[in-house]
Amino acid sequence: MRLITLAPKLTAALLLSLSIISAAIADEAELESWSNDATSKRALLTFVSQVTDERSPQYVPPEARIAVFDNDGTLWAEQPVYFQLLFAIDQARMMLKEQPALASESPYREIASGDLKAIAAGGQETLLKLMMQTHTGMTQTAFADAVRDWIATAKHPTTGRRYTEMVYQPMLELLDYLRANDFDVWIVSGGGVDFMRVWAEDVYGIPPENIVGSRLGLKYVNGELLREAKIEHINDKSGKPVGISQQIGHKPIMAVGNSDGDFAMLEWVTGQPGPSLGVLVHHTDADDEWAYDRDSHIGQLVRGLDEAAERGWILVNMKKDWRTVFASN
Amino acid sequence: MRLITLAPKLTAALLLSLSIISAAIADEAELESWSNDATSKRALLTFVSQVTDERSPQYVPPEARIAVFDNDGTLWAEQPVYFQLLFAIDQARMMLKEQPALASESPYREIASGDLKAIAAGGQETLLKLMMQTHTGMTQTAFADAVRDWIATAKHPTTGRRYTEMVYQPMLELLDYLRANDFDVWIVSGGGVDFMRVWAEDVYGIPPENIVGSRLGLKYVNGELLREAKIEHINDKSGKPVGISQQIGHKPIMAVGNSDGDFAMLEWVTGQPGPSLGVLVHHTDADDEWAYDRDSHIGQLVRGLDEAAERGWILVNMKKDWRTVFASN
Repeated sequence: MRLITLAPKLTAALLLSLSIISAAIADEAELESWSNDATSKRALLTFVSQVTDERSPQYVPPEARIAVFDNDGTLWAEQPVYFQLLFAIDQARMMLKEQPALASESPYREIASGDLKAIAAGGQETLLKLMMQTHTGMTQTAFADAVRDWIATAKHPTTGRRYTEMVYQPMLELLDYLRANDFDVWIVSGGGVDFMRVWAEDVYGIPPENIVGSRLGLKYVNGELLREAKIEHINDKSGKPVGISQQIGHKPIMAVGNSDGDFAMLEWVTGQPGPSLGVLVHHTDADDEWAYDRDSHIGQLVRGLDEAAERGWILVNMKKDWRTVFASN
Repeated sequence: MRLITLAPKLTAALLLSLSIISAAIADEAELESWSNDATSKRALLTFVSQVTDERSPQYVPPEARIAVFDNDGTLWAEQPVYFQLLFAIDQARMMLKEQPALASESPYREIASGDLKAIAAGGQETLLKLMMQTHTGMTQTAFADAVRDWIATAKHPTTGRRYTEMVYQPMLELLDYLRANDFDVWIVSGGGVDFMRVWAEDVYGIPPENIVGSRLGLKYVNGELLREAKIEHINDKSGKPVGISQQIGHKPIMAVGNSDGDFAMLEWVTGQPGPSLGVLVHHTDADDEWAYDRDSHIGQLVRGLDEAAERGWILVNMKKDWRTVFASN
């Protein structure tokens, strides 16, 4: 008698497994720049199949299908330094041309000397001054115009590519695949929110309201929003769950990052009852991009590498798992 | 010759006007709790017809159709005091029951005395203490649970209704009408964002990520988000354009409020090239709700009344323009 009552459940379970597997096979065409042999691709397809299948115990209704992506090193490259810092340097150079007398003071002195190392040698204080000088004291509109001009013309110091040509093709495909499965896709980055909002919709299809980042104080004066020299929120490390809670207001079910700056976000997202997925991109491709992890000055990945397996997070090996790195634009 | 070249344009303009007028007439059924004689209803229908008609010079593509609504006094009532303050008082009462010794100190002393005036007499300091004691020091989850319990059971001191039954029926219809016309609808309120997020989706159909409000500092500790006794952003007056810029990241084309706390938001939204609409709800219905404006201790409306006409903002006369006030639930 027991067998008879169990049989329909068993059959249902088998049918469900088959349907998930066949859905995963059918989806292989979706992530075409991902190697079909890669465990990471298989895990992504399985997760999406499970949370979108109404018969699955892992089913998640569309309104709760929120996926958050780090930006620097996850959606686009981040070497030799964060691209937003290269924007700041270019802005300071322009200001220096207009007012050469500035060269006597930091951070313009370091900019005038012409190499990135001088800025790095100036330490945190020089970097902060550089960011404040180039990111504050103007209206939101003027800042957006400056970013728009730069992103349309500036080129990366070693690849010679436009920065928007240094976005990862496999990630563009993953964003599309998630959206096609009714995920709401967000950027949750340590970068400045107003820097990303200028170009992220064109490049990733992610609208301004779906971007969480570090932010300055703003002041409304005479119908304009002025950017104040005051950091209000640093959206990195434990600041990421905070930024998500403030802006999205509910917990995502999927988080994708590439460094220990994303650890808290992945920990928070995957530390919930019900289905969730944590993904870390591991920069292993010195030929097509850069290879770095534990000792990197940028995008350092130590704890993520040590704990990914026990936490069930997917490690994406860029060299092995991706057939293409950069989008051809 | 000139007449000949002008004629097609003229014809097109006439056809366009006719199509907008007929669209507006067809839409009358949409806002059924709004009086058909009301200038406000006519203005709302015309605005929506214009921005959604691709042949209109006022056409706005769907991704830019953002409408922002104040909450207290705009989407639901706000008398005798903001409902969130009544929540705080009820929370403090519960804490007092559990720990009667608290009655010796403010704000519990005032709560124990049992009337709202004692709290008001304690001034800003008592109010702030009350809010901090009842809104901070717990996790985001625990706070959301407390709000959820309260909103499901608490009743308004004078009407005896549930608070969620004190939302304005004409505004629910306006939200639906805008969404049906591909507007993205947001709440931008001086109230606490985490207070509203618990129930706004059920009541207004507005999801957590589309709510901008005042917010506290949050801290991520051991996988939990803790609410800190630190006000990070007050989303009122000039804080409203700031909150919109931080969270939405682009300028809405429509703003709806009811008090001078909404003035800056309406000024900012309507002070742009291209189509925009500012709307102020004027509380004129002492029978079905409350009548107040210039001298009110809550929802004071002075500058809005004085400048609405010259700024082209719509004043909604609740008594005359609305056939029904509260949603029947």
